Amino acid sequence: MGIILGDREYFKGIGQIAYEGPDTDNPLAYRWYDAKKVVAGKTLEEHLRFAVAYWHSFNGNGGDPFGGRTHFYPWDEKKDKIARARDKADAAFEFMSKLGLPYYCFHDVDVVDYDGTVLENEKSLNTLTEYLREKQKASGVKLLWGTANLFSHERFMNGATTNPDFSVVTYAAAQIKIALDATIALGGENYVFWGGREGYMSLLNTDMKREQAHFAEILKLSIQYAREKGFKGKFFIEPKPCEPTKHQYDYDAATVIGFLRQYDLLDDLSLNLEVNHATLAGHTFQHELQVAADAGLLGSLDANRGDYQNGWDTDQFPNDLMEWTESFLIILRAGGLQGGGINFDAKRRRNSTDTADLFHAHIGGADTLARALITADRIRQHGALDQFRSERYNSFDQGDGKRFEEGRLDLKKLYQLASENPEPRMISGRQEYLENLINRFI
Amino acid sequence: MGIILGDREYFKGIGQIAYEGPDTDNPLAYRWYDAKKVVAGKTLEEHLRFAVAYWHSFNGNGGDPFGGRTHFYPWDEKKDKIARARDKADAAFEFMSKLGLPYYCFHDVDVVDYDGTVLENEKSLNTLTEYLREKQKASGVKLLWGTANLFSHERFMNGATTNPDFSVVTYAAAQIKIALDATIALGGENYVFWGGREGYMSLLNTDMKREQAHFAEILKLSIQYAREKGFKGKFFIEPKPCEPTKHQYDYDAATVIGFLRQYDLLDDLSLNLEVNHATLAGHTFQHELQVAADAGLLGSLDANRGDYQNGWDTDQFPNDLMEWTESFLIILRAGGLQGGGINFDAKRRRNSTDTADLFHAHIGGADTLARALITADRIRQHGALDQFRSERYNSFDQGDGKRFEEGRLDLKKLYQLASENPEPRMISGRQEYLENLINRFI
Amino acid sequence: MGIILGDREYFKGIGQIAYEGPDTDNPLAYRWYDAKKVVAGKTLEEHLRFAVAYWHSFNGNGGDPFGGRTHFYPWDEKKDKIARARDKADAAFEFMSKLGLPYYCFHDVDVVDYDGTVLENEKSLNTLTEYLREKQKASGVKLLWGTANLFSHERFMNGATTNPDFSVVTYAAAQIKIALDATIALGGENYVFWGGREGYMSLLNTDMKREQAHFAEILKLSIQYAREKGFKGKFFIEPKPCEPTKHQYDYDAATVIGFLRQYDLLDDLSLNLEVNHATLAGHTFQHELQVAADAGLLGSLDANRGDYQNGWDTDQFPNDLMEWTESFLIILRAGGLQGGGINFDAKRRRNSTDTADLFHAHIGGADTLARALITADRIRQHGALDQFRSERYNSFDQGDGKRFEEGRLDLKKLYQLASENPEPRMISGRQEYLENLINRFI
Amino acid sequence: MGIILGDREYFKGIGQIAYEGPDTDNPLAYRWYDAKKVVAGKTLEEHLRFAVAYWHSFNGNGGDPFGGRTHFYPWDEKKDKIARARDKADAAFEFMSKLGLPYYCFHDVDVVDYDGTVLENEKSLNTLTEYLREKQKASGVKLLWGTANLFSHERFMNGATTNPDFSVVTYAAAQIKIALDATIALGGENYVFWGGREGYMSLLNTDMKREQAHFAEILKLSIQYAREKGFKGKFFIEPKPCEPTKHQYDYDAATVIGFLRQYDLLDDLSLNLEVNHATLAGHTFQHELQVAADAGLLGSLDANRGDYQNGWDTDQFPNDLMEWTESFLIILRAGGLQGGGINFDAKRRRNSTDTADLFHAHIGGADTLARALITADRIRQHGALDQFRSERYNSFDQGDGKRFEEGRLDLKKLYQLASENPEPRMISGRQEYLENLINRFI
Repeated sequence: MGIILGDREYFKGIGQIAYEGPDTDNPLAYRWYDAKKVVAGKTLEEHLRFAVAYWHSFNGNGGDPFGGRTHFYPWDEKKDKIARARDKADAAFEFMSKLGLPYYCFHDVDVVDYDGTVLENEKSLNTLTEYLREKQKASGVKLLWGTANLFSHERFMNGATTNPDFSVVTYAAAQIKIALDATIALGGENYVFWGGREGYMSLLNTDMKREQAHFAEILKLSIQYAREKGFKGKFFIEPKPCEPTKHQYDYDAATVIGFLRQYDLLDDLSLNLEVNHATLAGHTFQHELQVAADAGLLGSLDANRGDYQNGWDTDQFPNDLMEWTESFLIILRAGGLQGGGINFDAKRRRNSTDTADLFHAHIGGADTLARALITADRIRQHGALDQFRSERYNSFDQGDGKRFEEGRLDLKKLYQLASENPEPRMISGRQEYLENLINRFI
Repeated sequence: MGIILGDREYFKGIGQIAYEGPDTDNPLAYRWYDAKKVVAGKTLEEHLRFAVAYWHSFNGNGGDPFGGRTHFYPWDEKKDKIARARDKADAAFEFMSKLGLPYYCFHDVDVVDYDGTVLENEKSLNTLTEYLREKQKASGVKLLWGTANLFSHERFMNGATTNPDFSVVTYAAAQIKIALDATIALGGENYVFWGGREGYMSLLNTDMKREQAHFAEILKLSIQYAREKGFKGKFFIEPKPCEPTKHQYDYDAATVIGFLRQYDLLDDLSLNLEVNHATLAGHTFQHELQVAADAGLLGSLDANRGDYQNGWDTDQFPNDLMEWTESFLIILRAGGLQGGGINFDAKRRRNSTDTADLFHAHIGGADTLARALITADRIRQHGALDQFRSERYNSFDQGDGKRFEEGRLDLKKLYQLASENPEPRMISGRQEYLENLINRFI
Repeated sequence: MGIILGDREYFKGIGQIAYEGPDTDNPLAYRWYDAKKVVAGKTLEEHLRFAVAYWHSFNGNGGDPFGGRTHFYPWDEKKDKIARARDKADAAFEFMSKLGLPYYCFHDVDVVDYDGTVLENEKSLNTLTEYLREKQKASGVKLLWGTANLFSHERFMNGATTNPDFSVVTYAAAQIKIALDATIALGGENYVFWGGREGYMSLLNTDMKREQAHFAEILKLSIQYAREKGFKGKFFIEPKPCEPTKHQYDYDAATVIGFLRQYDLLDDLSLNLEVNHATLAGHTFQHELQVAADAGLLGSLDANRGDYQNGWDTDQFPNDLMEWTESFLIILRAGGLQGGGINFDAKRRRNSTDTADLFHAHIGGADTLARALITADRIRQHGALDQFRSERYNSFDQGDGKRFEEGRLDLKKLYQLASENPEPRMISGRQEYLENLINRFI
Repeated sequence: MGIILGDREYFKGIGQIAYEGPDTDNPLAYRWYDAKKVVAGKTLEEHLRFAVAYWHSFNGNGGDPFGGRTHFYPWDEKKDKIARARDKADAAFEFMSKLGLPYYCFHDVDVVDYDGTVLENEKSLNTLTEYLREKQKASGVKLLWGTANLFSHERFMNGATTNPDFSVVTYAAAQIKIALDATIALGGENYVFWGGREGYMSLLNTDMKREQAHFAEILKLSIQYAREKGFKGKFFIEPKPCEPTKHQYDYDAATVIGFLRQYDLLDDLSLNLEVNHATLAGHTFQHELQVAADAGLLGSLDANRGDYQNGWDTDQFPNDLMEWTESFLIILRAGGLQGGGINFDAKRRRNSTDTADLFHAHIGGADTLARALITADRIRQHGALDQFRSERYNSFDQGDGKRFEEGRLDLKKLYQLASENPEPRMISGRQEYLENLINRFI
């Protein structure tokens, strides 16, 4: 593993994280995530396809609107940006290898600083792409998806592809082109669009309709470009309701699906759903999953959690067993994710400043999800929940109900049926029973 | 006006509400709503098309989840439900005539109690429809829209058209058929679908996809039925995110538009937007208006307001001048409402138990909106706001920007433009200036 | 058990609910609540002191602001209110006996309708008090606390003890006096004040200071009265931020404690905390527990849960293991509740219309809490969590830190220490590690 | 004004902002803020005591969690921190003089970078204090209050005075001591405590009781120190519910007042209330004002606004006339602020990058408040609102009501009164009438 670790070991004293089972007292071991364990016909690794988020884990510095960095990294010390970027890559691959997680995800600027012209930045990224390719080969870690950061630079303060100024749109497009090239070069399995500032700060100065049309056009051109370059992967679009803008156009799953349908983009794009974005939009994560699954667009997941008492994107690591058990019921029922995986789009807390915290965070996240998946599978095998749900609709599986569903009854016929039939009997939804059933398997 | 007032006068001591101008000290006069005043080429009456909500004003009793009725009505005393319904109609038309408002709206069960079989209820409604037709003729008050209440009866506890039990769906359909008949008989200008319980209490027992398909089918059948009966009016669908269910399918404007597009219903339906529903969904009302306007679906409005500290539908009367001024900017820019009007879907507070409170509530609402419309028109005549907004996008009105908007550039061309051109200059959104501009005209 | 069941069996087909252990497939058995199991030196029954809420379980009818009753009870059929009240008591004691729960709680009007004058209502309640005393004796079920419903009647629409009209205040006081008498007669262990409408609908018409002083005065007089009557139990006051009023004076634990301190009521009153009220106030339940515990005022609990996507009091049955495990860590650390117990202030969903749902709801709630208590005890026995927390503060256990805590250093001395000592080292809060630790024991 | 402007003019092209009246079309003029206009016996300047916030206006850089700086300042260019700090002071005083606002506020680190040891930082601040004193003298601008920034530095990540590590507490104390010295040296009229990180990230690792006791001790020591140094001004404490921590101890007005009462600090401290903090805590600003006024603790205000759709501290400039009119009704009724003033704790939006935006923001804020104050005074002169409110309580001004308020009736007497008297009549709160009344004067 010499080359994986680079010239130095960044996470000294921490060895390979292994599965030790629920009863271990070792906080640096998996208690539930046994990568090769088979559940519902696939290994946990194949189901979950965990990815580490380059930005939170290797760039994130603990800063918040009220204070500067608290996370200081040994890989962040060299003056030369290329050398510094290589150190970071060394640390990242050492970390991912030690955790035994199969994927990573990045924005272009996570990998190397974009502080030059378009062409200079492209050159820097190309240099690092070479380096990452070697790291991937040596470690077996793969790129789940790449993306372009179109929100941090000041030029994007009024939006990127939705900017009122065409020259900014060209800069956004150029950055996407370069990020697509890098993703393809690294064998990235997917590409994500997260419209970090695609929205508005104030409706007073905004032509929402025109901005959204521009956004759709860029999506179309980007997909066309990538396909011409031979990219076979999926494209994802990620909903979020607000922050950093007052209102983000990709508000939630239903809004994004409506937008894709309007602009005839349903064939090429599916959804990358994030827990904290769901809850900021006033939905459960389960709801967002179901909306995407019903549309056949359940692409990939960003696993994290928000804080129900705090109204911003806290992006904490997932730890809610109930939420994820219910989520995996939906995911399993939908036949799994379409091409994507589960990216830990989560960050240590500002005051979690030990190196070990970064490991605990990922271990806790992986264990929560593995346990939830195993639990959901057990609930499905028990069968009562799915059976109750499907039997609830069986009046539509036959007779007039079936004819109605097939579009073969008109309003007068329905009126006639109601006139002739007695008052429908009341049928309990039995929610409490079903909730007990979930808890029983946790 | 004898027949309008019925046999007795319910609102004794309160005469015709007239426009007296901003400086009046009379709380039972309009200060801004001068029905015949011309603004932007139309009278205020034509712009605003105010409607009184039958349910809140004549059925609503002040009850809430923690206590019973506090509003006791003299029109609610007779034992016979038909006689009682006629008294209520008398009171309603006396009230609307005294306020000088041109329209009303109702659910079927507002007009007369539905306590029998489907056919008995139909007969009761028909009886009252006759009576209301006479009242309309005598008073000149018209029906803005009718609808069916598919949420109060216990049979709808699991949904109406989205109920898992087909027999309930037939009862919902029958009720819609009867309400459509009544609306047509009364010359109703529009018909509204508000899916009071079309949603879910728990995802665990819900097949969202199947339920939504049923909902779409009923919409289709209802429209088909009404058109066959010669109905020429518009159909509206009303977004709301939650309450009474955990999640309502018609969450917000974008969700509803996506649903209509999916089921090919865009030609027949447009939106009935409500302020309090917008804010419960995490949007400004202005946002919802703009979303609907951009889709060409700005149908009708339910004017009320919520409470930003209380998370349920408080349905208070509108009084926010800033919110409505910004709203009318959008409405005027969109060319007004398409067929609909402005319904006061609002109720007096539980502890507003004087008869006069019902008048103050409507007067305050009408004045707020009239003043906001006048203010918005003045802002548009001043011109600086609209000019700033449109000039902000002028890089797309010519040259490569225009070609991009026309779909004539590809990603490589955009990349090339960015590579060759200097860093875009930063252009202020000038939000504070624009906000000052709004306040200046209030 | 003849007398417990009354003349008829209301819950036919459902027998005694027994503990069957985690692996049972029987939904009408406890999986965790084993009343006699000893944890941390006491039986589960002694720790938890579960109570059934008379109002939700025997009066609640499934109604909501958008629809009428869906729960129809066989004990609700007789015309005579006393006979009806006795039937309800029979059903209640049958239910509680079958569930094997030791306590119940009530408002005066839950027990018998208050539809007469003050003296008539007093007489009705006295009649039922006799009956309930017999039921208690026969069944062994006890009264955890009583209270007066000062929010449902229309006279309380502007508040009860905080009403601007003195005559309403006298009616509120009379009702408290009668409820206190009943509580004492039944051997009630505590008495609760829930200020259902003690707050305001609008600040514009409210003298908050004067209203709060009246509230404090009534608390004082009530306690004085009860003590004179020989009542030895505790008094509780229950925080809630809003609903039904816009703002309730007893907003949250900190607000109530501040109010009690201001009016010198800390000796007589402690807090009755509710989960859903905590979350409506923007707090975790754990936070509210800690605030009360730190003040030595952790009296009693209302166990339920809200819905993080719905902004009103949904009062669902508790099912969140993580929330309750963390809660019991605080409760155990505080030495348990002071006199109170755990009341299921929760209701079946509107569409949970089967008799069995009422059982599932309580079983699920009891199991969730029992499991959480057992888990919390195991975490405490493991010790690492409490140890980490206390060691985090050990710089205050000695030297200058200790002297500071004892009030023996001044600002200049602290300044001097900082000037002389090096930059403090950064110490991780290790939140992710601690969260993993919690999940490990669930 | 040469010395005020320093060596160069930073805001070229913008002259003195003057009052031009409501009808001006000049966006760089006041339309309502006429400093010398007399309202309710005092000039607007004396009522409002506007202050500019050094941090937002001269340090704030437009950065947010998703992107870096967008505001680039000419006063931020020099390498030497003292020289840079002087340039900033020059710009600040030029700005304040051009706006004609009488006060400013600062944190220590706003004035000069704190990048050294305690003693080095003290020396830097002293140097700047000299410079600011000259600027004050030359311009007439005064210091409304000073404070210490105890949240930005990484050492405060676990809290400042509530840090679990005593050595951090000493650093916090030292910084307060130095900031107090500077405030005194500059004739600052008040000193504010804002507990930027006094709260917790997780209850799991927190001893809330102990942390709060430390906080109280530091307040006590700080006040003692300042009084010994001859400081005669007021101390303020500022409520905020969350952000940057999960939970801030100074949650809202009621919580802070309870804390001050518990630690016997009511004589020395009053409240500095902020609009956006009120709304994040689930309160109206008016509510917070009334709570503070009722306790006699209405000290000073931070004028800004939040965004009801965004759950973080947006700190936008105030522009809501209704909110501020209602606020000034409370402030005027309370006899004004006690020692404090109105600080614009507000920032331009990230994308408001023109120099003029900073002026528009302050002008809009000042005009909104001036207009609201004038409007509130007109409402008070009209009299109907205050009269309605006070008459609503007149049953307590005489007879038994009065005796009750004086503590001269017991519970039995109240019971007896209720028994003997008829059902109280229902008295409307007339909220809609009162709301119309407010709007009428806007």
